[in-house]
Amino acid sequence: VRTGQLEDLIQRARAGEPRAVARLVSIVEDSSADVRPMMRLLTATGGVPARSARVIGLTGPPGAGKSTTTAALIAEWRAGGQRVGVLAVDPSSPFSGGALLGDRIRMQDHATDPGVFIRSMASRGHLGGIAATTPQAVRVLESAGFDVVLIETVGVGQSEIEVASTADTVVVLLAPGMGDGIQAAKAGILEIGDVYVVNKADRDGADSTTRELRQMLSMGPRRAEDDWTPAILRTVATDGAGVHEFVDVLDRHHDWLSASGELEKRRVRRAAAEVEALVLADLRDRMGSPSAHGDLARVSEEVARGQLDPFSAADLVVSALTGQPGG
Amino acid sequence: VRTGQLEDLIQRARAGEPRAVARLVSIVEDSSADVRPMMRLLTATGGVPARSARVIGLTGPPGAGKSTTTAALIAEWRAGGQRVGVLAVDPSSPFSGGALLGDRIRMQDHATDPGVFIRSMASRGHLGGIAATTPQAVRVLESAGFDVVLIETVGVGQSEIEVASTADTVVVLLAPGMGDGIQAAKAGILEIGDVYVVNKADRDGADSTTRELRQMLSMGPRRAEDDWTPAILRTVATDGAGVHEFVDVLDRHHDWLSASGELEKRRVRRAAAEVEALVLADLRDRMGSPSAHGDLARVSEEVARGQLDPFSAADLVVSALTGQPGG
Repeated sequence: VRTGQLEDLIQRARAGEPRAVARLVSIVEDSSADVRPMMRLLTATGGVPARSARVIGLTGPPGAGKSTTTAALIAEWRAGGQRVGVLAVDPSSPFSGGALLGDRIRMQDHATDPGVFIRSMASRGHLGGIAATTPQAVRVLESAGFDVVLIETVGVGQSEIEVASTADTVVVLLAPGMGDGIQAAKAGILEIGDVYVVNKADRDGADSTTRELRQMLSMGPRRAEDDWTPAILRTVATDGAGVHEFVDVLDRHHDWLSASGELEKRRVRRAAAEVEALVLADLRDRMGSPSAHGDLARVSEEVARGQLDPFSAADLVVSALTGQPGG
Repeated sequence: VRTGQLEDLIQRARAGEPRAVARLVSIVEDSSADVRPMMRLLTATGGVPARSARVIGLTGPPGAGKSTTTAALIAEWRAGGQRVGVLAVDPSSPFSGGALLGDRIRMQDHATDPGVFIRSMASRGHLGGIAATTPQAVRVLESAGFDVVLIETVGVGQSEIEVASTADTVVVLLAPGMGDGIQAAKAGILEIGDVYVVNKADRDGADSTTRELRQMLSMGPRRAEDDWTPAILRTVATDGAGVHEFVDVLDRHHDWLSASGELEKRRVRRAAAEVEALVLADLRDRMGSPSAHGDLARVSEEVARGQLDPFSAADLVVSALTGQPGG
């Protein structure tokens, strides 16, 4: 794509043309050579953050009902006239590109609505992975004038949590049974939520899950920045019960973010996560370069053979990279 | 701890004294200041890799029965006279340090056996996180003469998969129902396994899970290095059914690793993951330093305000770190 074509794409995306938006998000997802000039153009032409979207992260264990909840939120926001972008972030696998989107089927209610953009994003493992591509895709959707961007993370591991927690508001979704509470705690989920939702609240065990959650949250460390007390809600996303209240709480949290100055802080944090991921990807490339003096491959062989300890090996690589002594 | 004390600890760990082993693993887990000199001493005194352990990674979604399977494997290996170390790697959370170890209770069968060492390791987030501390703990157990080290990862996300996949042999554990197959595929699990085990094989759905798994594996990309075809097994870990065959397959895979030269390659890869994690932790520290010219915090603010694009920001940080132009 040449610069002129990129400019044209960006202009059309700004005008809300769905195909242009999709194209720009693909450029981000593929980490193609166009992503650099595109980000430069998006910034230079000042679309961001002038029209900044609310960014909401949704995470939780498999089976909690993330897709159904996303669909219910979309319906609610659309009823309020808001344009909604959804990034379903899937940190894996060539497999997941297309074949496994069956669970997105519920979202097809919204597939023909031009006020809704939905994309499953897999990380292709380039240029900083999902930690970089997610904020970039958010930036594209912001510049295209979406009012809300929902980042849904499919997994429950550390990377997924990190991505979800770069949102303005982080929602943790649980469901009764399956020891979800415990599993969630293990995955570090209990430290990142602004809003906790016990979905499938019509099922057995909803009370005890809610109780367990409340207890765990009360035991947890309070984050320094918080005079927001994490909310605990109950929903049945399949029939919409509780979803209206859910959206109200999201609005309240957004008001709090703006009033407290926390919104700005979180956005700087999101930018820092993005920039750091790009920096580390660049440095990782340099490390792998066979011409580099502190060549990672060479020292790793020595470490594997027991001839060099890992810290001394790391120091050699750092010093070759930076020209400064490592350690 | 002074050098003399460290030397003494290492000597006692080599002699198989459980408390000394536990102490050394704690030094690794806490990323205390002692971990550097300890790794240097372990390497200098040549205990590794002279007595190298077989390293087996076990991963899979919550509810697949990882702890029960681990207990069953320990029993089988102990019956064969092997000394077994288990590292249950939990990438999260202050919460998970002690209170949530209830699911380890089955392993208490082995708690008084000096031929078994079990440790739940949480990442304290220092010095490279679990990507660095796991190989370091493996090195401690190797030097203490353990024959097998099992790395069990508690989560199912990208980080957990990365850690499990630094093992010599990677086992992916699934169970019938819950759309596990699909979820596993999403988490990238289907690309890393040498051995797949459908546990709880006496339950409804075991046949279809096995079939689905076989189909997905047949669709997947073959890894270049593999003339090993991933094995698919069925177990009922609670009553030991299939566990003997499971251990046989692990032995066969180890023989294949040794004969093919793949064992050496994987160990270099494990060392590289460890060294890279230490290097990146060091560089991340440098990036965060407010005195640095390319200060991450400063450029991130500009990115958040839309005054700078993220790639140009990353280039500034890289160039400040390395003295070379970024990009």
